[in-house]
Amino acid sequence: MKKKIGVVLSGCGVYDGTEIHEAVLALLAIDRAGAEAVCMAPNIEQMHVVNHLTGQESKGERRNVLEESARIARGNIKDIAAVKADDIDGLILPGGFGAAKNLSDFAVRGENCKVHPEVQRLIKEFAERKKPQAACCIAPAVVAKAFEGSSARPTLTIGNDREVGGQLEKMGSSHKACAATEIVLDERNRIVSTPAYMTGKSIGEVAEGIEKTVRALIKML
Amino acid sequence: MKKKIGVVLSGCGVYDGTEIHEAVLALLAIDRAGAEAVCMAPNIEQMHVVNHLTGQESKGERRNVLEESARIARGNIKDIAAVKADDIDGLILPGGFGAAKNLSDFAVRGENCKVHPEVQRLIKEFAERKKPQAACCIAPAVVAKAFEGSSARPTLTIGNDREVGGQLEKMGSSHKACAATEIVLDERNRIVSTPAYMTGKSIGEVAEGIEKTVRALIKML
Repeated sequence: MKKKIGVVLSGCGVYDGTEIHEAVLALLAIDRAGAEAVCMAPNIEQMHVVNHLTGQESKGERRNVLEESARIARGNIKDIAAVKADDIDGLILPGGFGAAKNLSDFAVRGENCKVHPEVQRLIKEFAERKKPQAACCIAPAVVAKAFEGSSARPTLTIGNDREVGGQLEKMGSSHKACAATEIVLDERNRIVSTPAYMTGKSIGEVAEGIEKTVRALIKML
Repeated sequence: MKKKIGVVLSGCGVYDGTEIHEAVLALLAIDRAGAEAVCMAPNIEQMHVVNHLTGQESKGERRNVLEESARIARGNIKDIAAVKADDIDGLILPGGFGAAKNLSDFAVRGENCKVHPEVQRLIKEFAERKKPQAACCIAPAVVAKAFEGSSARPTLTIGNDREVGGQLEKMGSSHKACAATEIVLDERNRIVSTPAYMTGKSIGEVAEGIEKTVRALIKML
C-alpha cells in the first residue's frame, strides 16, 4: 500500500488561491517518492477573485475554492470536511494567497486571523497523533495559528520577511529564516516548512525546496 | 543571454484550458535547462467554462483565455498577438482541452478545425525560419492543422488513440504511437512531441516525457 499524503489546496492561482507551481511541484515530488497524493480543499466561496493579468480584484465575480482547486487536481479532489487524519499518513499545505485568504484570513487580520474550522481540525488531529505535516510559502502562518495556545511552539519558516516572521512569533511559533532551496525541520513537532515563492526567484529554486520538503515529510512517516 | 522559449497557454485547467501539470512541468524543465520561459496566450473568451469538480459545463459563465493563463504564469504573460518568431528561440504548446477548444476548435470540428490566427501565424513563422517547436498531449493537433497544405508532412504523436491519430493523418501529418515517458522527434521539421496525459498514468510519467521534450527542443536551438 502506498503512503497517502494529503495536499490541502485553496483555489487555483497565486493571488486568490493556491500557488499553482508549488502545488504541482508537491504532487510531482509525492509521486516520485512512491506515495499517493490525496487532494482536498474546503467547499467555500473564495474571499475574492483576482484578475491575474492586471493584479486587480474582479469585483462581483465569485468562485468556489473546492471547484477551482479541482483544476489543479484534475477533478480528483475531496471536500476537506470528509477527510480524517486516520485516512492519510502525511499532510502538506502548498502556498499562495489562498492559504491566507481562504484557508484562513491571515492576509486581512494577520496574527488575529482565524483558520477555516476543517483545516484547523485536520492540522490539530495530525498534531495529536504526531503525524508529520508540511507547509510552503505563506501556509506556515495557517499552521502557526492552528497550533496557537498549545504548548508545542512549532519552529517554522516563511523565508526572510521580518514582518510576517514577527506575526508567526506573535501566534506562538518560533520563526527561522531560510532560503527557498532549503527547509526548516521541526523534528519534535514533526513539521517541515520551506519559503517557496516567499523568497524563491525561479521555479527551479522553489522545486528544490519543495522536493526537500516532501522527502523530509515522507522520511518521518 | 538566456535562450527564450515561448510557452503557449490556453487557459487554466485541463477540461477548458491548459493542462496545469504539463504547463508547470514545461516551465520547470525550461528553467532547469538554463533557458527563460516567455508565457503567452490569445486574448479571447474561452469556448466555455467547465466545473472541474463535476466535469459539467458552467452554463452562462465566461472567462478570458489570457487572464486565466496568467494564473499559471503568475501574471508574467503576453498577448500572443504581440509575439513574433524573432522575439523567441523555441516554442512549446502544453496540452489540455484548451488547445482543442481555445487555440483551435479541434474538440468540436476534428480535422476540419481552424487554428486561432495568431497561433497559426506564430507556428508558421517558426516553420519558415526552421526554428524548433514542441507540442504535448492534444496540442500536436494544433500543429498538424497549422502545417496542413504545406509540403512538410510533420511526424507527430498524440499517444496511442487511433481515432485522434487518424485525424492528424487526415490533416496531412504522419502519426507515430508513443508512450508518455517518451518523445517523437521530427528532425527534418524540427518538431518534438510527447503524449503527456493523453496516455500518462501519473504526473511522474508525464514529467519524464516533458523533460525529454524540452531537452530535445533546446538541443535544436
